[in-house]
Amino acid sequence: MVSIVNIFMDYWFAEIITIGNEVLSGKTVNTNASHIGRRLTSLGFTVRRITAVMDEVDEIASAFREAIDRKPRVIVSSGGLGPTWDDKTAEGLAKALGVNLELNKTAFDMILEKYMTRKIPITEERKKMAYMPYGAIPVENNEGIAPGIYVYHNNIDILATPGVPREMENVLENFINKMLRNRSNLKYLEDFIYVENVMESSLAPYVKELVKKYDIYIKTHPKSYEMSHPILEIQIAGSGKQEEEIKVKIEKVKFELLDAIKKLNGIIRNSL
Amino acid sequence: MVSIVNIFMDYWFAEIITIGNEVLSGKTVNTNASHIGRRLTSLGFTVRRITAVMDEVDEIASAFREAIDRKPRVIVSSGGLGPTWDDKTAEGLAKALGVNLELNKTAFDMILEKYMTRKIPITEERKKMAYMPYGAIPVENNEGIAPGIYVYHNNIDILATPGVPREMENVLENFINKMLRNRSNLKYLEDFIYVENVMESSLAPYVKELVKKYDIYIKTHPKSYEMSHPILEIQIAGSGKQEEEIKVKIEKVKFELLDAIKKLNGIIRNSL
Repeated sequence: MVSIVNIFMDYWFAEIITIGNEVLSGKTVNTNASHIGRRLTSLGFTVRRITAVMDEVDEIASAFREAIDRKPRVIVSSGGLGPTWDDKTAEGLAKALGVNLELNKTAFDMILEKYMTRKIPITEERKKMAYMPYGAIPVENNEGIAPGIYVYHNNIDILATPGVPREMENVLENFINKMLRNRSNLKYLEDFIYVENVMESSLAPYVKELVKKYDIYIKTHPKSYEMSHPILEIQIAGSGKQEEEIKVKIEKVKFELLDAIKKLNGIIRNSL
Repeated sequence: MVSIVNIFMDYWFAEIITIGNEVLSGKTVNTNASHIGRRLTSLGFTVRRITAVMDEVDEIASAFREAIDRKPRVIVSSGGLGPTWDDKTAEGLAKALGVNLELNKTAFDMILEKYMTRKIPITEERKKMAYMPYGAIPVENNEGIAPGIYVYHNNIDILATPGVPREMENVLENFINKMLRNRSNLKYLEDFIYVENVMESSLAPYVKELVKKYDIYIKTHPKSYEMSHPILEIQIAGSGKQEEEIKVKIEKVKFELLDAIKKLNGIIRNSL
């Protein structure tokens, strides 16, 4: 059986870490991880793991350390950069890297300027956001106060972004535009087929054959009741150096799938 | 500084594993993890980690193995139990436990009955859903075909549920009602305050003091722009053996927080 690893070339793999108890208790749905996942995928990376941990220094440190040990090309975290007692990402990351946490002068200037222009005094809590691991580079946050933290370590681009979605997205884009060193030259393309009246288990043997034949990624997502009223979303995804080549491969796979669906009396839909 | 661990007594901690490339690429938001997190939290568990991994046997096995090594009381996974080539959770779990994957007769009977009553023939793909780690107990799935997988290992209740949300929720409830051995006697309570016109960084020193004073969990979630128009959601959460005791503590904390908010010219809102 063809492994996905072959297709996606795991040299360009990425990991995501989200920090915050609210995700673990289910209070907050982890949309930050989805956004980061989509963005990294669009750049040709394959996200191989997402880890959500509590606001505790040791948990954060171990999540970063374990991710670093798996040698991805990029690690992006979100959460834990704010001014409160439970914002501990900078400390956790420093511990994972084995360096000191120290006042980053550039970060402090960024923060100071934002408060000063609004005539708001700087406090210990506000100053806290300028503490970063030794050697880190602050990343501009145009949507809020806390700068992102960028570190290049063991050939891995490591970025910590704030947890507020708008700020996370902004810091992530600034990092991609100005700092990201490991750039995949892979293109990623995907296409979908929506089908009614075909059970996932009926289509399964065809999908298995096509995955083998084309060395491509096909996944069926059941969207309704398997037996009484089956609706399937079929995802066909590939990545490679030549966009045209992937396009052609996906088209061929779609053609064969549509043929199989016809045999199984499936009804093609335009959307879900 | 008071650690959350003290408050939540991590003897009752839990982990969640979700299996599926669609979560990693950001195609699907991980609402399954949120549901499982909320449900386990309501039972008095503290979810300490959520790990999302690819549909690969080795990745699934390592996620389970690492979770088992951290000695939680419960591990709940979702995804990867279906009939297709990329459904590999049973195999990954067997590998993590160091046991064989084998045809589970009870599971096979469950599956057979569902197809037979609808006069649908059994195929290799459909039979696949009956393969489970040696010693596993199938968990009834009243919303679909694939049964859940329950294993009691190293004093840990391990449950694998399907990835379709409706099926996951049903299998989870069947497991809680019939199989869950490690039952927390802790009650968990939480309350919220919504406030306008107070910056998170202004409230931070008060929150820090109250966390110390009451040994309770307080978290501020900024919902708008920190400086131009700050809106905060303040979460106050506690758990313990006596429901009344936690209630009183949360009320006292709320009282002191409202006092601090008044000092900071905050405006209390009824909701976000």
